[in-house]
Amino acid sequence: MNRGKECVVVGLLGCGTIGSGVYHLLMKNHEIISKKAGREIFLKRILVKDIDEPRPFKVDASLMTTKPKEVIDDPEIDVFIELIGGLKPARSFALSILSKGKHLVTANKELLAHHGGELVSVADKNASHLMFEASVGGGIPLIRPIEGSLGGDRILRIMGIVNGTTNYILTKMSEERCTFKEALLEAKNLGYAEANPRNDLEGHDAASKLAILSSISFRAGVTSSQIYREGIDRIRPEDIDNARELGYVVKLLAIASLNDGEICARVHPTMIPLEHPLASILGNFNAIFVVGESAGELMFYGQGAGSLPTSVAIIGDLINVVKNIDRLPDSRSYWSNEAKMGSFDEVITRFYMVLRVVDRPGVLAKIADVFGRNKVSLESVVQKGEGREAQIVLITHEVKERNFQEARRGLEGLDVILDIPSVIRVESA
Amino acid sequence: MNRGKECVVVGLLGCGTIGSGVYHLLMKNHEIISKKAGREIFLKRILVKDIDEPRPFKVDASLMTTKPKEVIDDPEIDVFIELIGGLKPARSFALSILSKGKHLVTANKELLAHHGGELVSVADKNASHLMFEASVGGGIPLIRPIEGSLGGDRILRIMGIVNGTTNYILTKMSEERCTFKEALLEAKNLGYAEANPRNDLEGHDAASKLAILSSISFRAGVTSSQIYREGIDRIRPEDIDNARELGYVVKLLAIASLNDGEICARVHPTMIPLEHPLASILGNFNAIFVVGESAGELMFYGQGAGSLPTSVAIIGDLINVVKNIDRLPDSRSYWSNEAKMGSFDEVITRFYMVLRVVDRPGVLAKIADVFGRNKVSLESVVQKGEGREAQIVLITHEVKERNFQEARRGLEGLDVILDIPSVIRVESA
Repeated sequence: MNRGKECVVVGLLGCGTIGSGVYHLLMKNHEIISKKAGREIFLKRILVKDIDEPRPFKVDASLMTTKPKEVIDDPEIDVFIELIGGLKPARSFALSILSKGKHLVTANKELLAHHGGELVSVADKNASHLMFEASVGGGIPLIRPIEGSLGGDRILRIMGIVNGTTNYILTKMSEERCTFKEALLEAKNLGYAEANPRNDLEGHDAASKLAILSSISFRAGVTSSQIYREGIDRIRPEDIDNARELGYVVKLLAIASLNDGEICARVHPTMIPLEHPLASILGNFNAIFVVGESAGELMFYGQGAGSLPTSVAIIGDLINVVKNIDRLPDSRSYWSNEAKMGSFDEVITRFYMVLRVVDRPGVLAKIADVFGRNKVSLESVVQKGEGREAQIVLITHEVKERNFQEARRGLEGLDVILDIPSVIRVESA
Repeated sequence: MNRGKECVVVGLLGCGTIGSGVYHLLMKNHEIISKKAGREIFLKRILVKDIDEPRPFKVDASLMTTKPKEVIDDPEIDVFIELIGGLKPARSFALSILSKGKHLVTANKELLAHHGGELVSVADKNASHLMFEASVGGGIPLIRPIEGSLGGDRILRIMGIVNGTTNYILTKMSEERCTFKEALLEAKNLGYAEANPRNDLEGHDAASKLAILSSISFRAGVTSSQIYREGIDRIRPEDIDNARELGYVVKLLAIASLNDGEICARVHPTMIPLEHPLASILGNFNAIFVVGESAGELMFYGQGAGSLPTSVAIIGDLINVVKNIDRLPDSRSYWSNEAKMGSFDEVITRFYMVLRVVDRPGVLAKIADVFGRNKVSLESVVQKGEGREAQIVLITHEVKERNFQEARRGLEGLDVILDIPSVIRVESA
């Protein structure tokens, strides 16, 4: 890597798993990358927390500094790659970079999901390029295909497996009939789950990604706080077995749709038919199903995390910024407009529900009565077990969230119902 | 659609299924398309064969002409969308457009597969934009993701279901256990197969698409004549049943890989494991599986044909051309270099084979001897039926094409073998 006159100078913020992968790829594929970018790319400085920290790929320590100012405020640096993650200090770094008319490539989903509108408006004001392909789906091309190739269409619906940790756990539970806790332990041992996996398990990570996908697909700013969220920790092996018997598989899905100008976005465990393209996405893979008004059903599949796949997305963005560095970037001004969100109560879906019941005649009539009064009609009802083990497993027809939840409260008040161990939403397409 | 001073003037060549879809989308989503393109888009003229021909979408007849010169030679037109298909007169139209420094968006796979190098070099010389997202996989974003998002990676392998007609037929045969002829008839009735379906059934269409994908992925010009090709007309319902028993499904795959600087590209019926992401691509859907050195396994799925999906890809390209109309286009000069193709004889794969045999002791020993002498080892051998129905169904381990074909010739010479009704290649990943 030589530093010529015409070169573009790059600074790297963060050099852990992904940062060292970016460094590795930049060195390894330097010729093809500079050729595609149309200019020499020169990596000048790397901001790290700890120079001696072990990294998956070897990185030239002479480029490293632990002082943010030595990178952020270096006037020679044209493009910054932000891989620190989180909101602090990433947000202030990003704002400082963009407000100086410098360009930013980031993988920081949280930052975009919380402050996308702010970043976009500062980038617009200063003609700064802001790229974030790596923030959703790791190495899977998504942001640019949606903005570019599908730019002439209207996106109606997104449905994705965007978190590898939870998909690994659900796949493991399904294939080996183990419990959530056992699968989580295995995921930790294999490095697929972090020591503190709450962010993944409770759906925060998926909600951040869905906020970004929704914002660019529906062209209005969606923040993660506007997204309904439910995690996978209450899924039981019995539910996965029941799902299979009924022709479904359980996935943590991030779902967003646009109806009559209102966006509805939600992350929750979902039963989808075994034939659905998302049903066969196994292990820590990601896949995003997109429905365009004219393009129809599309799916993008690949490794949603990992050092090198994510680095490919970062480098793809870097090439694009360098190629277009002398041009006005495309504006995403729509992101500053707060999205009009539909009420979650109005969402229409189907439900799978398990009720532990007192095993005596007339129970079903009482249950049916509660559903009937709340306008919930049932697609299938199966009684399983007897005596103390008596359970009713049912699937509703399509119903409004509000009506279902009212029925649920009504059922909880029935003396013949011991408890409701499981409620999972069911989607068909 | 108003014609302002700053507008970009567009001419449409061909207005059948896709052309009228492009017209429809341009009208319907005009505002968002012009906004994304950064300029007003004005469609001035449409070249048609027959003005009164029925079209899936209504098109303003006052824009139509049957005289090529009135469109091609109109000096006001900046961007041409070519949807005529085939080589004549599409090639001369394209060369005339590009040599004048005008820009071309095309869905013409045959043209690119035969003359891609020539078109690219004329486009380069005249700073003309040449875009062809719609030429492979209809509405599925492929060309731009491979060139852009994956631009910093090396593509190692492509494996795709790129022809909807053959996938529909094979799916139908698999789901309903019908014969090739019955499935073809149904495909014709539903409009999924043309009156003369040879181009699809014999793999010509898939080979053209693979030539384009290989050229951009491996950065060297591959023409369809360099691609090994075998169609699906000899697939029997029994083969599909046998495949399922062995854990496979039969698909017409377009496969290309880069090994030691040599490209190998082939289109043939292929058995792939039921768990492979491509195995669950049903009906007339397309899916392209891509393996990047760093990005790992990726898959792109969607409607590979059809008026509106294909139109979305055309419009996405049009937006890109208009947005970049004042800039030098990216060069694809590599396409003029003829690709270094590996010898097909050296390809390593596995084979499924059915032998109708004389039912007497010692037959298997004779067969095993022929395989052994040709260094073909067997993974599984099953005898099916008795007497006149006696068959041997086998799958080989990995073997070079040359060795397998020598063994096959050896088997054909054995007096205990009546005939070899089926040979299908088997791929694992």
